[in-house]
Amino acid sequence: MQVINNPLPESDRETAGAALQATLPDLLDLSLVAKQAHWNLHGPRFRSVHVQLDEAATIARNYADTVAERAAAMGVSPDGRAVTIAGTSGVPAFPSGWTKDRDAVEALAHALSAVIGRVRRRIDETGPADVVTQDLLIGLTAELEKQNWMFQAENRV
Amino acid sequence: MQVINNPLPESDRETAGAALQATLPDLLDLSLVAKQAHWNLHGPRFRSVHVQLDEAATIARNYADTVAERAAAMGVSPDGRAVTIAGTSGVPAFPSGWTKDRDAVEALAHALSAVIGRVRRRIDETGPADVVTQDLLIGLTAELEKQNWMFQAENRV
Amino acid sequence: MQVINNPLPESDRETAGAALQATLPDLLDLSLVAKQAHWNLHGPRFRSVHVQLDEAATIARNYADTVAERAAAMGVSPDGRAVTIAGTSGVPAFPSGWTKDRDAVEALAHALSAVIGRVRRRIDETGPADVVTQDLLIGLTAELEKQNWMFQAENRV
Amino acid sequence: MQVINNPLPESDRETAGAALQATLPDLLDLSLVAKQAHWNLHGPRFRSVHVQLDEAATIARNYADTVAERAAAMGVSPDGRAVTIAGTSGVPAFPSGWTKDRDAVEALAHALSAVIGRVRRRIDETGPADVVTQDLLIGLTAELEKQNWMFQAENRV
Amino acid sequence: MQVINNPLPESDRETAGAALQATLPDLLDLSLVAKQAHWNLHGPRFRSVHVQLDEAATIARNYADTVAERAAAMGVSPDGRAVTIAGTSGVPAFPSGWTKDRDAVEALAHALSAVIGRVRRRIDETGPADVVTQDLLIGLTAELEKQNWMFQAENRV
Amino acid sequence: MQVINNPLPESDRETAGAALQATLPDLLDLSLVAKQAHWNLHGPRFRSVHVQLDEAATIARNYADTVAERAAAMGVSPDGRAVTIAGTSGVPAFPSGWTKDRDAVEALAHALSAVIGRVRRRIDETGPADVVTQDLLIGLTAELEKQNWMFQAENRV
Amino acid sequence: MQVINNPLPESDRETAGAALQATLPDLLDLSLVAKQAHWNLHGPRFRSVHVQLDEAATIARNYADTVAERAAAMGVSPDGRAVTIAGTSGVPAFPSGWTKDRDAVEALAHALSAVIGRVRRRIDETGPADVVTQDLLIGLTAELEKQNWMFQAENRV
Amino acid sequence: MQVINNPLPESDRETAGAALQATLPDLLDLSLVAKQAHWNLHGPRFRSVHVQLDEAATIARNYADTVAERAAAMGVSPDGRAVTIAGTSGVPAFPSGWTKDRDAVEALAHALSAVIGRVRRRIDETGPADVVTQDLLIGLTAELEKQNWMFQAENRV
Amino acid sequence: MQVINNPLPESDRETAGAALQATLPDLLDLSLVAKQAHWNLHGPRFRSVHVQLDEAATIARNYADTVAERAAAMGVSPDGRAVTIAGTSGVPAFPSGWTKDRDAVEALAHALSAVIGRVRRRIDETGPADVVTQDLLIGLTAELEKQNWMFQAENRV
Amino acid sequence: MQVINNPLPESDRETAGAALQATLPDLLDLSLVAKQAHWNLHGPRFRSVHVQLDEAATIARNYADTVAERAAAMGVSPDGRAVTIAGTSGVPAFPSGWTKDRDAVEALAHALSAVIGRVRRRIDETGPADVVTQDLLIGLTAELEKQNWMFQAENRV
Amino acid sequence: MQVINNPLPESDRETAGAALQATLPDLLDLSLVAKQAHWNLHGPRFRSVHVQLDEAATIARNYADTVAERAAAMGVSPDGRAVTIAGTSGVPAFPSGWTKDRDAVEALAHALSAVIGRVRRRIDETGPADVVTQDLLIGLTAELEKQNWMFQAENRV
Amino acid sequence: MQVINNPLPESDRETAGAALQATLPDLLDLSLVAKQAHWNLHGPRFRSVHVQLDEAATIARNYADTVAERAAAMGVSPDGRAVTIAGTSGVPAFPSGWTKDRDAVEALAHALSAVIGRVRRRIDETGPADVVTQDLLIGLTAELEKQNWMFQAENRV
Repeated sequence: MQVINNPLPESDRETAGAALQATLPDLLDLSLVAKQAHWNLHGPRFRSVHVQLDEAATIARNYADTVAERAAAMGVSPDGRAVTIAGTSGVPAFPSGWTKDRDAVEALAHALSAVIGRVRRRIDETGPADVVTQDLLIGLTAELEKQNWMFQAENRV
Repeated sequence: MQVINNPLPESDRETAGAALQATLPDLLDLSLVAKQAHWNLHGPRFRSVHVQLDEAATIARNYADTVAERAAAMGVSPDGRAVTIAGTSGVPAFPSGWTKDRDAVEALAHALSAVIGRVRRRIDETGPADVVTQDLLIGLTAELEKQNWMFQAENRV
Repeated sequence: MQVINNPLPESDRETAGAALQATLPDLLDLSLVAKQAHWNLHGPRFRSVHVQLDEAATIARNYADTVAERAAAMGVSPDGRAVTIAGTSGVPAFPSGWTKDRDAVEALAHALSAVIGRVRRRIDETGPADVVTQDLLIGLTAELEKQNWMFQAENRV
Repeated sequence: MQVINNPLPESDRETAGAALQATLPDLLDLSLVAKQAHWNLHGPRFRSVHVQLDEAATIARNYADTVAERAAAMGVSPDGRAVTIAGTSGVPAFPSGWTKDRDAVEALAHALSAVIGRVRRRIDETGPADVVTQDLLIGLTAELEKQNWMFQAENRV
Repeated sequence: MQVINNPLPESDRETAGAALQATLPDLLDLSLVAKQAHWNLHGPRFRSVHVQLDEAATIARNYADTVAERAAAMGVSPDGRAVTIAGTSGVPAFPSGWTKDRDAVEALAHALSAVIGRVRRRIDETGPADVVTQDLLIGLTAELEKQNWMFQAENRV
Repeated sequence: MQVINNPLPESDRETAGAALQATLPDLLDLSLVAKQAHWNLHGPRFRSVHVQLDEAATIARNYADTVAERAAAMGVSPDGRAVTIAGTSGVPAFPSGWTKDRDAVEALAHALSAVIGRVRRRIDETGPADVVTQDLLIGLTAELEKQNWMFQAENRV
Repeated sequence: MQVINNPLPESDRETAGAALQATLPDLLDLSLVAKQAHWNLHGPRFRSVHVQLDEAATIARNYADTVAERAAAMGVSPDGRAVTIAGTSGVPAFPSGWTKDRDAVEALAHALSAVIGRVRRRIDETGPADVVTQDLLIGLTAELEKQNWMFQAENRV
Repeated sequence: MQVINNPLPESDRETAGAALQATLPDLLDLSLVAKQAHWNLHGPRFRSVHVQLDEAATIARNYADTVAERAAAMGVSPDGRAVTIAGTSGVPAFPSGWTKDRDAVEALAHALSAVIGRVRRRIDETGPADVVTQDLLIGLTAELEKQNWMFQAENRV
Repeated sequence: MQVINNPLPESDRETAGAALQATLPDLLDLSLVAKQAHWNLHGPRFRSVHVQLDEAATIARNYADTVAERAAAMGVSPDGRAVTIAGTSGVPAFPSGWTKDRDAVEALAHALSAVIGRVRRRIDETGPADVVTQDLLIGLTAELEKQNWMFQAENRV
Repeated sequence: MQVINNPLPESDRETAGAALQATLPDLLDLSLVAKQAHWNLHGPRFRSVHVQLDEAATIARNYADTVAERAAAMGVSPDGRAVTIAGTSGVPAFPSGWTKDRDAVEALAHALSAVIGRVRRRIDETGPADVVTQDLLIGLTAELEKQNWMFQAENRV
Repeated sequence: MQVINNPLPESDRETAGAALQATLPDLLDLSLVAKQAHWNLHGPRFRSVHVQLDEAATIARNYADTVAERAAAMGVSPDGRAVTIAGTSGVPAFPSGWTKDRDAVEALAHALSAVIGRVRRRIDETGPADVVTQDLLIGLTAELEKQNWMFQAENRV
Repeated sequence: MQVINNPLPESDRETAGAALQATLPDLLDLSLVAKQAHWNLHGPRFRSVHVQLDEAATIARNYADTVAERAAAMGVSPDGRAVTIAGTSGVPAFPSGWTKDRDAVEALAHALSAVIGRVRRRIDETGPADVVTQDLLIGLTAELEKQNWMFQAENRV
């Protein structure tokens, strides 16, 4: 069923929709991983990193909302269910149990790097299909790379 | 490793910790399902239900945070990762694709009912072990049953 | 007609629902009496008591809303109409006409005492039926007894 | 006892005071009926009408406060007690029990129409006695007719 | 010099302008007297009356601004200088030195009564000339009579 | 079709509705002209007048909303479409292209004067028909004449 | 007269300026149409759609301001007068009179689709001339397509 | 009557009290003059100076409050009545009638200079008596000289 | 003297009052110790722990207020004077002088553990006497154990 | 150990540090006494004095923070522990048990007078050593003497 | 040392980093020049231009922060020290001493034009290297050209 | 040219003006150095110190504004241009490139110490010339020494 009409040609809508759908579980997983680290954290940097992880989770959640609603506006049904996240996210697996502050910071930097690499490729792919979607992914990358800088800086001695 | 000390006996900590850990993926999944419906919604009640689903997702997310931090305070490492949600949540499966407003409302009422039933049992189980955890679950149930009333009322003709 | 489903057994729902319905006109009447005194007040403590009565009215109104919505969530239709308040409230009658500040304070303390006595009995009755409703009534009693302390303290020379 | 002095002649004060006192239970009853519908509502427009009824209740409560304090400023003791509301309100009786959204909207439109008719007559009556009271009732009518328009528009297919 | 043009006939502008100019020093003096009492107050009701006097001063100041800007909009230059206040205000003289709370309340009630009497006469005078100015004075009277009620109620034992 | 019921007689509703409908394009045009000047302004008073024009546009827009909703509440369908504004507004034509600050201020004063003259006539016409509509137009005139004073004062050397 | 200097070549300024000027009446007309529907709405979705239309009108108004000020910054005088809107807008004509909720939603979706189509073409045209203007139009399209999705979703059964 | 006790010796209290009492009418008159100019202003800088005068009036009013309450805290009854302002203020007389922007700016700069000169002398006088009062006058001078700079800068071509 | 009446039997009031009075100096001392550490802190975690200690002090102060007012509402005079804190607090002694960040974190965790152990015993004791007081202590324990988790997590390497 | 370096000579640092350390328990005790009175208050001025005492406690607490942090900035470790307060405060002993409003006001005025006398002496002592510390104590005295005036004024009949 | 990792190739990072580093002193100098003019301004437009310059300074400062943090996120250390600003800024020299309003406006327009020209070239250079950096510079140019329009419009007679 | 008149003798104005002008580049440089460290920071305390540096930069910027406007009010043109900062600031040189957290903290403490030493000398110099300027520098020193304490405490192990 075609629920929402969008003026772009079908193939462009598919290209943009695929990039958005691929980004959605990445961001939702990023927010879940940031929260997991936020709760299981320990070490001398606890409070500082605890707050930083919460901000990263909030940014990921808010952009997930923007990405999903852009997919809907393209006429492509977004899928952000737990099974989809668990099955398709590009975020590296995060271990269970208590997490030392240094390890949590390292894990977030890796998770952000992984997502940035994937989203940067989608910037290239969506450009010819839909500049509006591309512009959204460019703005997302700016935010993810800012977060990545801050987590990396935190672990560089 | 015992990271956090809590004065309760080990068995009481285990009982309360198990109830909290079981509740965490229920709430996170509830928030993901509410968001999934929020994005894929259509029908004459779109705007009204779209907003209501967002409020439900926010309530579930905030209580997930409270529950996970209570587990940590009990010395029990909480697990809210995507695989854990996908594997242990008690929320009924939600279909992919566009969702009619009436069906979304019905699905949320069912999801809320399922979680309420599970949390009410944990209220009974945790009482003898830790009244603080029990009190948290009572407050959660009040909120979930209020949401459940509003989704049910929306679909009663 | 059973409009809202709630997982508790029918008898527990009836017990909790009856306690909530009995509390609703008590609180609405309390708010009306506080407002009546707020408008008809005179005496050297006018401004101070005028404000205090408004706060008491607001607290009673807000808890009435919470109580009525909890009844609805239990599947019990709440009744807060004027005839029901006039017919079933446990708040002592308040005289018409201008009211001296000392008398208004005394009347509020009596009204609060009467409602507290009734709600405390309902805490005992609802415990075995529904701890969620009981918890709501405990929180309400904390608030009413705080108000009662302040009105009593105002009239103790 | 004449508690408050007002410069108007006694007969003008009586005319204005009578109009204000007659309006007070109308508005308080309107707020109670709007809340009753707010709590007992069901049907596909639940959330939207639930919010709208709360706004109507708030407007009626706030104007009741203004009307009662104007009566006091005229030297006329206002009476907004439950028995007075039950005995003198011009708002049509509202049935007990759960209420379908369409019926709630209809009932509110009728209640508003009834109060508007009564207040408009009082605008005419108070003009020669006290333009300040008249101006208050004109402002009240503007608000009530705006609410009435919105409830009527909601039920016009 | 005619600085501001207004469409009303000259005589109507003069009538409305005269009423506004006469009201301006009344309100500015009322604010100065309320502040004088606010600073010199003592007695067991100090804090309560101290706050009440400040609210009265603020109301008088704000309405003075509205009245003066309405005069300017009528093309009539407003005069609110100290000498004009001292020379033309209708507020009774307020004694120098410390003021007992009861006396301050009484003085404010008298000051408000005096201004109300004067403004009510101007409501009658401006009606035929300019309903916009008249409406402003009606709103001012509503506020002044509300303040007057509250100061009177404070001193009625 | 009679969508909204209002208790006034048909002829009174027509009189008031006609006055409101005539006012709506006046106000919407006033807001468009103020914005046009806001964008095309130049000269040494640029920033100051730029802000002042924005405030005038906001006031005109907000009153247009109030006027249109009052028409609806009278049961009269309001018409604020571009063709209606272009065809029936009483605001003098505003030239295209860049506008010197002095000319923009002059044009706004003329536009306000034109609308004030038209609205003042409608105050007289609506009085016998509907005092609620009349009161709205009186309040509108107070605001328009305040704006007119400020734009005139800005250009009087 | 060249009032504002901008470093781009004349032909690029003309291309960008033409795209911006063409967009301005589209957006102003969109806001007028959304308001027209906001005021004339009726039907069971009244309150929900009434609010949604107001949000759409606000978005259109705010972007019109951004577009017009960008034109000015390009040295191109913007024209957003009523006659220009009526003469050059690409928004389909909206009928006068009361509007059923379903029809209003449909009309907004059509209006948004028409504007989106026009603005997307201008994205292509302005790219070679001025990437800053192009970026503004891309951001505008993202917002318009989000609105379009929500109005379409509201009418898909 | 000695209403308020202060630990300083009588002569020091008198010195500080005299300085504060002398400052009170200066500041109240400054606020009245600033408001007089605010209302009667005209000329091409109208809006800008209109706002600036209001800020100056607010600063003067707020410091008058601080000064009067400091006098009270010293056990010295402050006098800020209209006759006292008119009789003892050191602010130069301000003419009645409409005021050109340039003249208003000049008059404020003169008024501020006059008050600054007087307050600076009181800084010297109060130092040996009460450093707390002196510190208040130093803070007041900083504010007055900042205002004075801005009014002077406005008139320097 | 029995200043405040409370409906509970004397022995229940004594039991609850004793638990509340015992808790009051614990919380006030906790706030003083947290502030002492807040001021004397040094080490690489200075800023982070400095803020965390302030939050802990604020939480302890606010709950002290709630506990003391609950005692008053039970008719039991609360005692939170310095000598009572110094004499009866269960918080371990905190050394004078500068404090290393690690030591401050450890000390807070110990202080929190000590208070938690004492309050948990009072939860058991007050249950049979007064469920309202017990509920307050349960909520307090939830907050203290959350703080304790965060201070422990900060020191676990 | 010298933890914090400050450019002043050792003897000046000792003089200023001693004055600050002496002031800290005075202010903390003042806040505890104000809270003690706030909780144990009764009498016809209850609400008004209850609020006033809370404001005094907040002011004392906030200045205690400023004073302690200034000591730290001087390189002097501040001591605000309960035993230090109990042992070195200059605030007169406050009785246990319920307190009549008049007595509470009197006690606060005495407590404030005692602290003011002590702080005024420290203003003289610190001047030659550190004008920054002296300026802080001058600002504190202004605030304490304002509070003292208000508590005295409340009890002067 | 390579502190921060970024996925782009080294040459692209260098290109983008060079553009960002070149922009940083431009923006910091712009903010210093705007502040210099803000402080030294005089003339009849003083207040209006004084505020406008402050807004320009704030915009330049905020974008400097964004640009520097983007450089860091690219793994390029940003340099915004005074010597770097003085040595590499592209903003024309601004004279010392008092500045007439007209000259300040002219200088800001020139400064903005210079920076715009430089940033527009960097938009072209960074596109092939990093679209995220390019997008940031496009957004910056939009803001700078808006400011430039407003300063130019202010000086066009 | 003497643009602004100030009542102080020329020599006093020069003394105070020289002290203020000398302080301005110190504060502006302090803010630039704090920002430089804020951007180039790395190490395990990254987030905590990153925020602390931003607060220090904001404090320095705000006081620079106050100092410059005080100079203007003294009739002395302030100079805060980049070349002046680079040429006359007393802040030690800060190295380019990435900065370890410990080094950044140390550098800020040194920078603050240097500025404090210079400003303390100016407190002595300005006292005989202008107590208003002196008071400003005393308040500035209090703030700088508070910042200095916190940066020192952060690096004391």
